[in-house]
Amino acid sequence: MPEWAAAEVAGLADRIPSVEARMRVVLRFARLNFESDTGGPFAAGIFERDSGRPIAIGVNRVVASGCSSAHAEVMAISLAQKALNTWDLGAAGLPAHQLAVNWRPCAMCYGAVLWSGVRSLVVAGSGPELEQITGFDEGPLSPRWADELTERGIEVVDGILREEACDLFRAFKAVARAVYNARQGRPG
Amino acid sequence: MPEWAAAEVAGLADRIPSVEARMRVVLRFARLNFESDTGGPFAAGIFERDSGRPIAIGVNRVVASGCSSAHAEVMAISLAQKALNTWDLGAAGLPAHQLAVNWRPCAMCYGAVLWSGVRSLVVAGSGPELEQITGFDEGPLSPRWADELTERGIEVVDGILREEACDLFRAFKAVARAVYNARQGRPG
Repeated sequence: MPEWAAAEVAGLADRIPSVEARMRVVLRFARLNFESDTGGPFAAGIFERDSGRPIAIGVNRVVASGCSSAHAEVMAISLAQKALNTWDLGAAGLPAHQLAVNWRPCAMCYGAVLWSGVRSLVVAGSGPELEQITGFDEGPLSPRWADELTERGIEVVDGILREEACDLFRAFKAVARAVYNARQGRPG
Repeated sequence: MPEWAAAEVAGLADRIPSVEARMRVVLRFARLNFESDTGGPFAAGIFERDSGRPIAIGVNRVVASGCSSAHAEVMAISLAQKALNTWDLGAAGLPAHQLAVNWRPCAMCYGAVLWSGVRSLVVAGSGPELEQITGFDEGPLSPRWADELTERGIEVVDGILREEACDLFRAFKAVARAVYNARQGRPG
């Protein structure tokens, strides 16, 4: 995680009760990440679903870490699992955990959510706007992506601060030097 | 990566020309991983596609590392990217890279393949046998999963040592103490 993030995490409230307030934290980290030139415009937070206690915040670190899997969701999930010393955030004895992220996860992070143990996924939006605004390839998802989550005990809460999230992607696009995705490696 | 893996990697040939020989390496690591009680029955290797030079081998480390994203494919991709100091294994100037894995990647690892920069994916098989034999939930994939890869410049080679892979899953199942997946965290 970038240096600025430690101070930001230390400054978080002990409890962040509403999903809107949690998404506001996520959007703040996403904005700081690209404004600080430390990664793409994506952040994700793991919170205790009922108490609102923040467990971990992750930001996109693909280029900085030289690792294509270092998306915000994978970072947040891994940091939370390290903090709680478990690979299953839904393990018996733990409070329910919620992942908040500033758009529907990409194909990889969608799968990472499935295996993380979180019981709740909060997204700012899930439509084509992210790809349309930024040009990031998000990869294919099953049309039943939300049903597949709920069938595994993971609720989906969509449309939290949707316009603010789109505004952030537009602000990123206005200053972005490059958008990396699978097609960059496409032959021909 | 587990301790035994370092010696195994050091013992690999400098060039492993055929996809069958590469899959045999993958199956050996997958078997050693569960027989050594260091993780699930999955391994993945990154090779230079044309020369057969092995770049990195990863094995499943979910329980050992306390990280639900530590699947074999993510491990192999991340180790190869670290070795080559790039988040894009398909970057200009690099030889084409191939990922070999002992079944079709799960929903998460499928996405990880998309963003890794590999130009080729070799799998032992892609049918329901893995889930049927082991009980692992692999998550939903688009029915166009292979087309979506080829459209992004990633060839798919299916059915390499398929029966050997199924035999390995049966051997795992015969000794497995627990199968962890999303449903373990399912309420009710």
